[in-house]
Amino acid sequence: MKALVYQGPGNKAWEEVPDAVIIDDTDVVVRVEATTICGTDLHILKGDLPQVTDGRILGHEAVRTVTAIGQGVRRVAVGDRVLVSCITSCGTCRFCRDGHAGQCLGGGGWILGHLIDGTQAEFVRVPFADLSTYPVPAGVSDEAVLMLSDILPTGYEVGVLNGTVRPGDVVAVVGAGPIGLAAITGAKLFSPAHIIAIDLADSRLTAAKTFGADVTVNNSREDALEIVRSLTGGLGADVAIEAVGVPPTFELAASLIRPGGHIANIGVHGAPATLHLEDLWNRNITITTGLVDAYSTPTLLSLVGSGQLDAAKMVTHHFDLSDFERAYEVFANAADTGALKVVLTAAG
Amino acid sequence: MKALVYQGPGNKAWEEVPDAVIIDDTDVVVRVEATTICGTDLHILKGDLPQVTDGRILGHEAVRTVTAIGQGVRRVAVGDRVLVSCITSCGTCRFCRDGHAGQCLGGGGWILGHLIDGTQAEFVRVPFADLSTYPVPAGVSDEAVLMLSDILPTGYEVGVLNGTVRPGDVVAVVGAGPIGLAAITGAKLFSPAHIIAIDLADSRLTAAKTFGADVTVNNSREDALEIVRSLTGGLGADVAIEAVGVPPTFELAASLIRPGGHIANIGVHGAPATLHLEDLWNRNITITTGLVDAYSTPTLLSLVGSGQLDAAKMVTHHFDLSDFERAYEVFANAADTGALKVVLTAAG
Amino acid sequence: MKALVYQGPGNKAWEEVPDAVIIDDTDVVVRVEATTICGTDLHILKGDLPQVTDGRILGHEAVRTVTAIGQGVRRVAVGDRVLVSCITSCGTCRFCRDGHAGQCLGGGGWILGHLIDGTQAEFVRVPFADLSTYPVPAGVSDEAVLMLSDILPTGYEVGVLNGTVRPGDVVAVVGAGPIGLAAITGAKLFSPAHIIAIDLADSRLTAAKTFGADVTVNNSREDALEIVRSLTGGLGADVAIEAVGVPPTFELAASLIRPGGHIANIGVHGAPATLHLEDLWNRNITITTGLVDAYSTPTLLSLVGSGQLDAAKMVTHHFDLSDFERAYEVFANAADTGALKVVLTAAG
Amino acid sequence: MKALVYQGPGNKAWEEVPDAVIIDDTDVVVRVEATTICGTDLHILKGDLPQVTDGRILGHEAVRTVTAIGQGVRRVAVGDRVLVSCITSCGTCRFCRDGHAGQCLGGGGWILGHLIDGTQAEFVRVPFADLSTYPVPAGVSDEAVLMLSDILPTGYEVGVLNGTVRPGDVVAVVGAGPIGLAAITGAKLFSPAHIIAIDLADSRLTAAKTFGADVTVNNSREDALEIVRSLTGGLGADVAIEAVGVPPTFELAASLIRPGGHIANIGVHGAPATLHLEDLWNRNITITTGLVDAYSTPTLLSLVGSGQLDAAKMVTHHFDLSDFERAYEVFANAADTGALKVVLTAAG
Repeated sequence: MKALVYQGPGNKAWEEVPDAVIIDDTDVVVRVEATTICGTDLHILKGDLPQVTDGRILGHEAVRTVTAIGQGVRRVAVGDRVLVSCITSCGTCRFCRDGHAGQCLGGGGWILGHLIDGTQAEFVRVPFADLSTYPVPAGVSDEAVLMLSDILPTGYEVGVLNGTVRPGDVVAVVGAGPIGLAAITGAKLFSPAHIIAIDLADSRLTAAKTFGADVTVNNSREDALEIVRSLTGGLGADVAIEAVGVPPTFELAASLIRPGGHIANIGVHGAPATLHLEDLWNRNITITTGLVDAYSTPTLLSLVGSGQLDAAKMVTHHFDLSDFERAYEVFANAADTGALKVVLTAAG
Repeated sequence: MKALVYQGPGNKAWEEVPDAVIIDDTDVVVRVEATTICGTDLHILKGDLPQVTDGRILGHEAVRTVTAIGQGVRRVAVGDRVLVSCITSCGTCRFCRDGHAGQCLGGGGWILGHLIDGTQAEFVRVPFADLSTYPVPAGVSDEAVLMLSDILPTGYEVGVLNGTVRPGDVVAVVGAGPIGLAAITGAKLFSPAHIIAIDLADSRLTAAKTFGADVTVNNSREDALEIVRSLTGGLGADVAIEAVGVPPTFELAASLIRPGGHIANIGVHGAPATLHLEDLWNRNITITTGLVDAYSTPTLLSLVGSGQLDAAKMVTHHFDLSDFERAYEVFANAADTGALKVVLTAAG
Repeated sequence: MKALVYQGPGNKAWEEVPDAVIIDDTDVVVRVEATTICGTDLHILKGDLPQVTDGRILGHEAVRTVTAIGQGVRRVAVGDRVLVSCITSCGTCRFCRDGHAGQCLGGGGWILGHLIDGTQAEFVRVPFADLSTYPVPAGVSDEAVLMLSDILPTGYEVGVLNGTVRPGDVVAVVGAGPIGLAAITGAKLFSPAHIIAIDLADSRLTAAKTFGADVTVNNSREDALEIVRSLTGGLGADVAIEAVGVPPTFELAASLIRPGGHIANIGVHGAPATLHLEDLWNRNITITTGLVDAYSTPTLLSLVGSGQLDAAKMVTHHFDLSDFERAYEVFANAADTGALKVVLTAAG
Repeated sequence: MKALVYQGPGNKAWEEVPDAVIIDDTDVVVRVEATTICGTDLHILKGDLPQVTDGRILGHEAVRTVTAIGQGVRRVAVGDRVLVSCITSCGTCRFCRDGHAGQCLGGGGWILGHLIDGTQAEFVRVPFADLSTYPVPAGVSDEAVLMLSDILPTGYEVGVLNGTVRPGDVVAVVGAGPIGLAAITGAKLFSPAHIIAIDLADSRLTAAKTFGADVTVNNSREDALEIVRSLTGGLGADVAIEAVGVPPTFELAASLIRPGGHIANIGVHGAPATLHLEDLWNRNITITTGLVDAYSTPTLLSLVGSGQLDAAKMVTHHFDLSDFERAYEVFANAADTGALKVVLTAAG
């Protein structure tokens, strides 16, 4: 089969590799009919995640048809149309039993395209398939479902639910890239009074409006703190969601919050941030971090199925699997190309 | 009357001042029959809180007899024996209505000995008295009750409840001064499996054992992280409570926590700390900060009344009010004197 | 002034009474420019609430202008445009301090038009006015705001929040009268997958669709249980809200619920119901009851102000205050008149 | 092997049966070195659970050595000393993934000694063993651990956690049989102010005191409601736990509760109860029911291991497995024999 193979920092190729096959009896093999690229894949290519080794097939998002199953698989059958989650769950460790598969101690967690071969390929082996794939509701497009492999549950669980967004809240989202837009989409489900999108790029702020932000702030030229305060009687936002992953955006998010508010960090950070405890120690704030656990995936699938979540709106570009290298280029240059999520599909 | 008056950084005196009197119709005046000194008072004396102005009477902890009441006071009568809380509640702002009087927007919060004259005096005026004083249960000593003005509700609300201590948890408390001991006392109410006290002073660790810690770590010579990991299968503590207020202790607390764990900051910080988001972003941790709200004061009073909380154990030294300056000396030199809480009482 | 006076079971009259005046220093007097009738008023008129005595002015919902204030009132001024809540809060008892003013032990709770004179009058005295009235946002009509005296917070707190409605849930609402419609309106804020309205009257089910129900069941001829099961893979609803107040509707609600689901009772009951513990003991269900506390009133006011809640849609009929007796007739015969909420306004 | 076989209502025998063997690849076989009898077993023998068929081996509680494992078992090895939980978890259905294995839709839940052969035998087959057995901590006796198969997690999860017992609470436990005593034991972990045990038998009330109740009420001659009110300023208990399973005890529990309080039903009911909604509709109460899910089993095991839970105290009588019929007699006549839990052990 063909796959997108990591070849050390800065290098990758769409090339012939051995076929994906069943190894453990709880595995399935899925034919990848749609997959996508995540910002994390770009981090890997920069060499930021040294645990990803040369020769690894990248990718942790995919959708489609099961072609083989191990003997211990109970809930998935050959021919099923499934979503492959970015999170694999062993189902038996203390974290999986508690709904926190992102912290799996039993060989799961985020492993696809990270510690084992991933989804940017014609086929992918998915371990612990009963708990790591989800049946796709009828009538929903592959590309809508594909947004539930990672980006929508991440925005929803780590941003919206950890941040405890409530009806009537003022929610500030720092960063309007794909993950920030996913957080905005998820926040809308709770009817906040205002969603304030903050970014440096006007094109992303324009997108944020179509996803549900009613206030946008370009913080290259506008003062986010002043705008948030003017909307909140000087108190600050109820919830601030960090969706970038660098120290200044975390520190901005932390500065926007009202006493008693929540700061939900989604961003993948590579460096420490400064926590201004001299300002925050007596303000009753809560800060959360998290990797997605995917416990919300069935709920989000049902909301996509009932038309309440328009997930496909995130997709801006389409490519054939064989065109993977060009897709990476377009996605990596989002500032110029306006790319949010790019979808790669297998030729009919 | 006599009172302990702040006279700018480094200076204070027990001196004659005008009598405390009713100003607003929801005020009461309380004769101070027992009061104490808080670590925060030492911060004020160092000049760390510039909002405290020259001439301010210090102190935010007191117990005893109501001598005058305003016309609008409903729940307190002259002659009542009351606890004066460090937190004053207006009762009508959004935070007070929600149980968060520490964030009061209506003229309350922590004001005694800070923005208005305090309790280190023969008499003190207490605003919003219906909501800022508590009747003392019969049969409980003044000095036991006095620990509920600040230290016990602070350790309980900001450390134990914010940290969500649960039966069977491993709880690490960084700092075994009075506030750390209060957190240990409160944590015991939830039957954790282990309470690990961490401090640089052996004398405080010895005290921690009598308050309920079952493991102690002197981190001048022992490796707290290694000890916590050895008790938790390598995962880390369920809850880490920061009870000092300097960057290294916060950073230590943050390093001790398991995936999904809680870091509850109680310490009063004067400088930013480093938050290692590069390690924490994907660990599903929760960090909380807070000023006490005193919503737990009635519960804690009832537990002192029923003998389940031995609050008086915190008191190591006794003085007459007139001996206030010596009491400050003993309290400020806790490392030498072994002082935890010092109690000052009015001469019979 | 004129007022609607209860004269024992079956009797009432719009007649001259002494003017409303300040009695306690935390009272205000409000000129009633809009008021309405509640189903509970009909119960009183039937004699179901014997604590309501002859001569009592009825009504617990009103909006408008403050004409006098007591000396202890801080947050309300003469001339303010305010919402009068059905719940009066003393602000100092344990329940009020905890946000549960509906259970007030200090002279508040539901007292207007019940234990003291109410709002169906030209003027009304409102005790504890700082905590029992709310400033009306600019640009919002009196009649929209009037729905927040009772019906919307009741549906939201006692139905939606007690029932813990979540995105993706299937919510069954038994009873599509005004309170059921209020619950549907509130449930929509949480983006459930389905809201199923159940009633015996087609006209109410038609209304339910305009308020946000996507499935309606006329249980005079359709099988609610079967329909709920068909929408939930046989499991039952996540949340069932009882909005009628008779045993059969409670028992229906209890039968519709999935294992682990919530039954939120809003209905005012006059007789015991049968609880089928032989079916429910092992199904992990939660049943809640409650009187509104009005803690959500500020949030709902802000959502009305921002246009996210269309409260005025509930109003079907308008009358002049002097026409109160006819308004009662129309409201009492809702089956024929199609009345949901009737609004009475003072002549300009 | 030998086993206790149900032979239709009223009949049972300790007799030779085919050996327990692995059927599914996630099964283990455990040699039963200690087992016990549950009140539910008596219900089965009365014929109350018709789904239990003739020839079924009874029992859902056991401890000891794994003698065989299926090919798909990952976390359990031959020779391991394990606790067999009364709850079997498939691990992949929506309820198991959410921590609610008691509601398992995938072939688990309470099946041992109910829908498949149970633990009152020399050997037992345990399905889904990775999720349905727990390693026993070193240094803990078999009979202490055995109390964690069912009775302690049931009292803790369904009584204490569902009832949300908090420090300082007044907790009323209706029924001081084994399950009521388990609830008392669990409630103690949260330091309530008072635990009030209510029963008709003085012997059980005496036992209740040794388990942590500080107030006892024999409601054959004392007025529980009056006693609860006298301890709570007339308001009622914070939490009432029903631990019997008949209508009058449920109705008593419901009558004891304060506004805003919780009624946690543990009892196995065979008949409907009367729910006095005419009294409760406006009191903000919460009623919960539940089958144990066993999510707390690891926590309770660790508390037994650390000596904080003295589970073995529940055991009053010991028998050899071959003496099973006599053990049933003693347990069934608890009123005369004073039996709480009886333990049956395999001869060395």
